[in-house]
Amino acid sequence: MTKILESVPNYSVGNDEEIIEKIVSPFKSHEDVKLLDYSADPDHNRLVVTNAGNPEGLFESTLESIGIAIDLIDMNEHRGEHPRMGAVDVIPFTPVRNVAMDEAVDLAKRLANAATDKYDLPIYLYEESATRPERKNLENIRRGEFEGFPEKINKEEWKPDYGPEKVHPTAGVTAIGARKPLVAFNVNLRTDDLSVAREIARRVRHSSGGLRYCKAMGVDLEEEGLVQVSMNLTDHTRTSLHLVFELIRAEAERYGVNIAESEIIGLVPADALMNVAEHYLQISDFSSDQVIENRLLEDL
Amino acid sequence: MTKILESVPNYSVGNDEEIIEKIVSPFKSHEDVKLLDYSADPDHNRLVVTNAGNPEGLFESTLESIGIAIDLIDMNEHRGEHPRMGAVDVIPFTPVRNVAMDEAVDLAKRLANAATDKYDLPIYLYEESATRPERKNLENIRRGEFEGFPEKINKEEWKPDYGPEKVHPTAGVTAIGARKPLVAFNVNLRTDDLSVAREIARRVRHSSGGLRYCKAMGVDLEEEGLVQVSMNLTDHTRTSLHLVFELIRAEAERYGVNIAESEIIGLVPADALMNVAEHYLQISDFSSDQVIENRLLEDL
Repeated sequence: MTKILESVPNYSVGNDEEIIEKIVSPFKSHEDVKLLDYSADPDHNRLVVTNAGNPEGLFESTLESIGIAIDLIDMNEHRGEHPRMGAVDVIPFTPVRNVAMDEAVDLAKRLANAATDKYDLPIYLYEESATRPERKNLENIRRGEFEGFPEKINKEEWKPDYGPEKVHPTAGVTAIGARKPLVAFNVNLRTDDLSVAREIARRVRHSSGGLRYCKAMGVDLEEEGLVQVSMNLTDHTRTSLHLVFELIRAEAERYGVNIAESEIIGLVPADALMNVAEHYLQISDFSSDQVIENRLLEDL
Repeated sequence: MTKILESVPNYSVGNDEEIIEKIVSPFKSHEDVKLLDYSADPDHNRLVVTNAGNPEGLFESTLESIGIAIDLIDMNEHRGEHPRMGAVDVIPFTPVRNVAMDEAVDLAKRLANAATDKYDLPIYLYEESATRPERKNLENIRRGEFEGFPEKINKEEWKPDYGPEKVHPTAGVTAIGARKPLVAFNVNLRTDDLSVAREIARRVRHSSGGLRYCKAMGVDLEEEGLVQVSMNLTDHTRTSLHLVFELIRAEAERYGVNIAESEIIGLVPADALMNVAEHYLQISDFSSDQVIENRLLEDL
């Protein structure tokens, strides 16, 4: 059974088509990697690439892509709305099939080690591969951004996990990590009262007392005349989509508000939706081997 | 994008391990076919094989398997509980990925033509590939079984679609067809009153006024102290699992009975469950391209 992971490297380039094509070329050409998507946002000045592949394929293609990005991006000239600290800002690996989290952590460390050797780049490990609790959260690492890192990197508590204790002059620093798949799930409410979405977001999200693997905020959808509870589910195997959905429904009832619709943004693992079907249909003893497509994936 | 169909050939052998292994060997060895499952029931004296593969792979391997079964099975000595009319009793093809129903019909006809040429076997087309309305339903074709066919085949209305107008002396006759994927879906009710399951089955099934693509019957689950609405959904894209489930829930309420659990027997296409998740979560604008695993299947 082939091991499959997803990787979503983020690069600090959003306008230059030529550079973007060069950066993604190692993913396009590697036979054990499938480039699922890449999109560049000029305002954010950021390129987000999504790949799936086996560990060795992702290791080789990502290492090559890092080298290309370091050669072509100069962070001293980079401006953009999205916070960033390096030419290759962050590289998360996520288990998809037949891969344990340990193996994703191992891949992150191997890549960090190789990239440091090859490109003299300081690298921080984050999320599941973090070496200190305060490095689990990417925002903590990135705080100060490219401009602030020459000072930050000298502090004992921000010594890089790999590489020199000195910012790369043009490429800055990079974070590499392993994490659970993230599901971007939004629920739209049939009201134009933003305070309802904000109040519900506050109750369902972990940070203010809600569900363990749910981040949420209220958003105004002015054009639709609706409001939205916009969420990231950071571990759908434990905080499932239906749990979140039913909790929002119950909370909305308190305001006499119905759910208008929901949406999933970007990619989602099949299991996240299969579990929803199993829940609502009260299916007992179901095995993922019963899904025809899963059997076909065994041979990949 | 590779075209994938499922095939579920049924053979009239249930006891002889050696014969069974020989019959399935062409599916095991063909590189474009994946043998998903095979199981023989001694009481039914019947072998049911499930394969997935591209049209050419299924064509070649099935043609070879038919020849092996004809050589090794003598219907004159066959006894079993399951109705049957030939050594290779029935071969349905079902579109799974990137295949239109027309292509499945075409595959059924090509296989029928080739098998007739090679083995002098009379063949009937059924379901979506049927040439006459009364041949859509397999039960109509099979009525009379192996023992009755020497007489039935002489009638003008039961002239075979392919091959001689004469039963094969040891292999009988065969039906080949194309059909939608069949989902075996059972809903268990928290009561031991069989009449409740029977009454609900009567209301939800097509034959007595219910849902278009639903066959249903009431079954007593004595050991569990429950009763079951046991169903075959013959087109889950039109009569979906959640539609059936909610209708049964509503009907059961009339008796003050709750749904205890449900079960899916055997294989199910991923879409059948994805649609359930989309329904209950009220997901709008979802594309199957958003499911990571679907993107990986594109390269098969």
